[in-house]
Amino acid sequence: MSNSLGTHFKITTFGESHGPALGVVVDGVTPGLEISQKDIQAQLDRRKPGQKLTSPRKESDTVEILSGIFEGKTTGMPIAMLIRNKDAHSKSYDYLKDLFRPGHADFTYLEKYGIRDHRGGGRQSARETANWVAAGVIARKIIAKYKIKIVASVVEIAGIRASVFNEKEISKNMVNCGDKKAAENMVAAIEKARREGDSVGGIIEVVARNVPSGLGDPVFDKLDADLAKAFMSINAAKGVEIGSGFEAARMRGSEHNDVFLKKGGKIITTTNHAGGILGGISTGMAIVARVAFKPTSSITQEQDTVTTSGKNTTVRVFGRHDPCVAIRAVPIVEAMMANVLADAVLSQEALRRSR
Amino acid sequence: MSNSLGTHFKITTFGESHGPALGVVVDGVTPGLEISQKDIQAQLDRRKPGQKLTSPRKESDTVEILSGIFEGKTTGMPIAMLIRNKDAHSKSYDYLKDLFRPGHADFTYLEKYGIRDHRGGGRQSARETANWVAAGVIARKIIAKYKIKIVASVVEIAGIRASVFNEKEISKNMVNCGDKKAAENMVAAIEKARREGDSVGGIIEVVARNVPSGLGDPVFDKLDADLAKAFMSINAAKGVEIGSGFEAARMRGSEHNDVFLKKGGKIITTTNHAGGILGGISTGMAIVARVAFKPTSSITQEQDTVTTSGKNTTVRVFGRHDPCVAIRAVPIVEAMMANVLADAVLSQEALRRSR
Amino acid sequence: MSNSLGTHFKITTFGESHGPALGVVVDGVTPGLEISQKDIQAQLDRRKPGQKLTSPRKESDTVEILSGIFEGKTTGMPIAMLIRNKDAHSKSYDYLKDLFRPGHADFTYLEKYGIRDHRGGGRQSARETANWVAAGVIARKIIAKYKIKIVASVVEIAGIRASVFNEKEISKNMVNCGDKKAAENMVAAIEKARREGDSVGGIIEVVARNVPSGLGDPVFDKLDADLAKAFMSINAAKGVEIGSGFEAARMRGSEHNDVFLKKGGKIITTTNHAGGILGGISTGMAIVARVAFKPTSSITQEQDTVTTSGKNTTVRVFGRHDPCVAIRAVPIVEAMMANVLADAVLSQEALRRSR
Amino acid sequence: MSNSLGTHFKITTFGESHGPALGVVVDGVTPGLEISQKDIQAQLDRRKPGQKLTSPRKESDTVEILSGIFEGKTTGMPIAMLIRNKDAHSKSYDYLKDLFRPGHADFTYLEKYGIRDHRGGGRQSARETANWVAAGVIARKIIAKYKIKIVASVVEIAGIRASVFNEKEISKNMVNCGDKKAAENMVAAIEKARREGDSVGGIIEVVARNVPSGLGDPVFDKLDADLAKAFMSINAAKGVEIGSGFEAARMRGSEHNDVFLKKGGKIITTTNHAGGILGGISTGMAIVARVAFKPTSSITQEQDTVTTSGKNTTVRVFGRHDPCVAIRAVPIVEAMMANVLADAVLSQEALRRSR
Repeated sequence: MSNSLGTHFKITTFGESHGPALGVVVDGVTPGLEISQKDIQAQLDRRKPGQKLTSPRKESDTVEILSGIFEGKTTGMPIAMLIRNKDAHSKSYDYLKDLFRPGHADFTYLEKYGIRDHRGGGRQSARETANWVAAGVIARKIIAKYKIKIVASVVEIAGIRASVFNEKEISKNMVNCGDKKAAENMVAAIEKARREGDSVGGIIEVVARNVPSGLGDPVFDKLDADLAKAFMSINAAKGVEIGSGFEAARMRGSEHNDVFLKKGGKIITTTNHAGGILGGISTGMAIVARVAFKPTSSITQEQDTVTTSGKNTTVRVFGRHDPCVAIRAVPIVEAMMANVLADAVLSQEALRRSR
Repeated sequence: MSNSLGTHFKITTFGESHGPALGVVVDGVTPGLEISQKDIQAQLDRRKPGQKLTSPRKESDTVEILSGIFEGKTTGMPIAMLIRNKDAHSKSYDYLKDLFRPGHADFTYLEKYGIRDHRGGGRQSARETANWVAAGVIARKIIAKYKIKIVASVVEIAGIRASVFNEKEISKNMVNCGDKKAAENMVAAIEKARREGDSVGGIIEVVARNVPSGLGDPVFDKLDADLAKAFMSINAAKGVEIGSGFEAARMRGSEHNDVFLKKGGKIITTTNHAGGILGGISTGMAIVARVAFKPTSSITQEQDTVTTSGKNTTVRVFGRHDPCVAIRAVPIVEAMMANVLADAVLSQEALRRSR
Repeated sequence: MSNSLGTHFKITTFGESHGPALGVVVDGVTPGLEISQKDIQAQLDRRKPGQKLTSPRKESDTVEILSGIFEGKTTGMPIAMLIRNKDAHSKSYDYLKDLFRPGHADFTYLEKYGIRDHRGGGRQSARETANWVAAGVIARKIIAKYKIKIVASVVEIAGIRASVFNEKEISKNMVNCGDKKAAENMVAAIEKARREGDSVGGIIEVVARNVPSGLGDPVFDKLDADLAKAFMSINAAKGVEIGSGFEAARMRGSEHNDVFLKKGGKIITTTNHAGGILGGISTGMAIVARVAFKPTSSITQEQDTVTTSGKNTTVRVFGRHDPCVAIRAVPIVEAMMANVLADAVLSQEALRRSR
Repeated sequence: MSNSLGTHFKITTFGESHGPALGVVVDGVTPGLEISQKDIQAQLDRRKPGQKLTSPRKESDTVEILSGIFEGKTTGMPIAMLIRNKDAHSKSYDYLKDLFRPGHADFTYLEKYGIRDHRGGGRQSARETANWVAAGVIARKIIAKYKIKIVASVVEIAGIRASVFNEKEISKNMVNCGDKKAAENMVAAIEKARREGDSVGGIIEVVARNVPSGLGDPVFDKLDADLAKAFMSINAAKGVEIGSGFEAARMRGSEHNDVFLKKGGKIITTTNHAGGILGGISTGMAIVARVAFKPTSSITQEQDTVTTSGKNTTVRVFGRHDPCVAIRAVPIVEAMMANVLADAVLSQEALRRSR
């Protein structure tokens, strides 16, 4: 435990990388929403492996909806979605059975549970995040009436930072970056690392626009706290910041405080260092967050390690791995933003309605 | 909602800055632990205002234990602790009743709830964190058998970074920093900002040693995810990172991966970029995290803002405020680390025991 | 754990019978409701001991509101309420320290926790239910807009059943029964039992009118399931039934099924064997439930038992006890109905609103 | 919401009667337990329809394990189990689409959600309980080390009560009753009702032996309260009682109190009116509970009702229905006992271990 996230919009997931299937049960879904298998599939296709610069594992990741939808509409019943594993080369993981891959959770899973499914990393695999993306599609339907728009993109890879942001550019390059020029340099850096049997890290920025004010439940379900948890749950994430983030520590109050202004009948702030959240509650300005991802742990360079019985050995991790996990994490970060916002929206609507 | 944190070790808090009292109910406490009012008070005294460089508000913050302890020992019943508010100058907040202080949650609380207790910020005040510190003392008792040691300190203020770490130094200087020289510069920077009616931000690093391997519950109660949530819940926090954190994004896999080694009968890693957590589960190495705090929102410089009815105005926030909130956040960060670890320890002990 | 009940309207309680205080934190409260200390006190006064035919313990049970209310209105922040223990004759319980009172939870608390606060039964005491009654007042405010009316009364004591129901009669007799004649017989039976150093059991019926249809969340937060849990949580409860209850087992489908009818623009059922709940969801008809209470465990007759070290002994339980707990349970049953309905109403309003 | 039950041993279910599939995700499972598909199937076969005196629906109810088991053992990861619907004659339910069957939840689901899957009752169908039975098999594995034995049987149908209990008899007769003679009379009564287009109710008693003392978590996760909730969640349940139950209301304290005695090095009670639970915590004596079931709502007699648009009409509910739901509820009651006990055992082991 625990394999559930959320209070009002709650997802419960299961599945191992090389087991029969992955799946997610989404509870708390508003009845009457139109959702089709195609909606889900479209987002899963953005995340799936087998695309350029990412793992060559070939998974169609075809999702099947098992419940909660009747004649094309949600019924308020839990929606279960199933993704069968097909291209699972479990055999090719046999040489990893008895050793601990550096940077992976082989060691900690065995320490914790005393048993582990080593095939493809079992449940520690990022394959699990397909479930989160599938749930995210339902979440987006729930928050759609506010016209909330969520866009994530890579803003840094291997130390190369995007300096401009062009949303249309994101889907055009291989690294999901909004800066065409930077993207080219990032691709070069990734390919260089791969040639050297190595991997690189990166940073994703996610922006949610049209978020209504009032979302988030202090003092322990603050919107920024729930986002921090959701983002830090993503495989390989090592840091999360909201708005000005770590840079805030270097600013003065007079500089950091966002000044309020009435504009067009609405109270806004002239700047948005807060990243759209004050006191754990959304301000109505864009929510801005960044998530740092470590370089892929699976590298083909030889590394020292120990076997499960504690003997020194070395390992080179072949298999089908992304040289930079941040790229494929873009739709995952968006999905987690949607999952957290759907939970917050449902919570706030209960509060508003009861008044 | 929600004012509860944790699953196995659960705290539920209440109280406004200028209401009758604050308090916390701690549930899930192991029976038979020796706890006294003095234990709690000692930690509260570290956090309380009225000390140098911090808010001059004079609160004795005397805690009263209301339940759950019998003849000096915990009984397994919920422990309620109460802190009365005494030095509440509510009147001096009257001029803030009808306007939104920049950087504060006045606006968002009103947007969310349609009503707010403006006195001293009501529940949005950091005074709430006294509850978290009190709970943290109980948490430490629960994890004491592992001899877990938690130490937080300021590592950066106003852009000035600590370059050495001497644990004994922390309590000796006014900024809770482990670097004597840096501390002096930090103090100077804070005082300069205060003179200028301004404030500064800072970064706290927290290290937990002797944490057993196996803590944390993937995939949604990962130890790092729960820490991220707990730390981001602290007032003024804008960023959280674990181990190498954002720097990981600039590293290569061959550099970032911590190599396993058997040493003294125990499997360790030779480096600790992971910050003691892999796959959301503790490795047995020290847990290392950093939390970024924005500069104090309350500054005496004049700032533009609007009234609750949307009229342009200006405000200078007098009152009793810390010019750098990071200083007093040191025991709070430690307490949140303890609260999260106690929850994880109880969860893991259930898992181990049931095997 | 756990000392919390409810999901959307959540109460968290603490306190021992002879400790410093009892208390409850109510979370999820709709902002803007008018609530005063007097509202709470009025219900507590109905439950408090020292009244006729009930325990002579003299507790003023004065409640203090510690948070969540500002200028007479709820703010959406958690409301904490405190009741100090005053008339705690702990000394008079000393002879019970080392033995297990038959029918009480002395044995099971010690088995579970390995330690126990024996004074007045510690947390196992029904004194805890004062917290539930206090919370129930807030719950009633939340459901007030539906004009839900909750009335509980004693329908059976010592085998004597009420055969008529006159609501106005309930507060006029000493046993909270709606049948004047039966009430007289019940009183006589109770007094006879008391004279003989014995106690009697009873049954309470509770009816909630004007409950909107649609409350309850299948398949595990069904309204009847949540009511069953809440009622069975009450000290000395041994059975719960909804609508026709156990009698349903002896009926035929053609007799038990409530036929639907459109009347006055509304769909109703002509009978109400369902007790207002079908499939775990309220029908809009009155919710009807009954709760069976065992006879008070504390009796002055000599009973065999064992000491904590397992030696045979006998015990006569003096102290201040009700000879029939069902009488004082009437406001408690009402409060639990209110607490469950408030939770269900908030849940359903979130669902409705999000459509 | 909510479709999850339990805290430490948590089940999350999904699926409609005539949708693609049913399923359950079981979280909190102890790693290292041996579980096979056959173990699950054996219990499902006890519950499945198409057996004598029960619905003629032919469902093989073949379960597929999707996750959480590796090489025959649990890994601590969530176990998902899937049951495909095959014999779903959805068409035959079309005439029910626009009317409300008396006694069913057609009306309340539509009132609550504004939309409903009418096919076979959608999620309100008792077919859902197959999930609970599947989860119960895992629960039994968790509590197996205590050698807990759970046996449920029918003790009353159509007013005919069992007067003896012979465990071996239960599986031999068509009504799962421990009294051969009574069983014959029950069968006759059921067949008579069916011939008359009618149905009958019944009562199940469940006994759990070898339950360790100390299970249950006051004051809101009392063992009896959690059992009451779990049992009242079962389709058609209208009442729950523990131990002496409603009869306790007619007893005197001197008669009802179970006297403690030391026997064979263990403290027991000489009687068990408490039904194995005192103060919400197990005593170590057998846990005894009874659940009352209303007569099957689907009857072929003509009944008055209204259409969804409120017009008067009549309905005769054909289809494939049990004339007495209590019979098939026997393995369901056992499964819910197991699910609740597994949750309580894991909770208590965490408490014990942490001491």
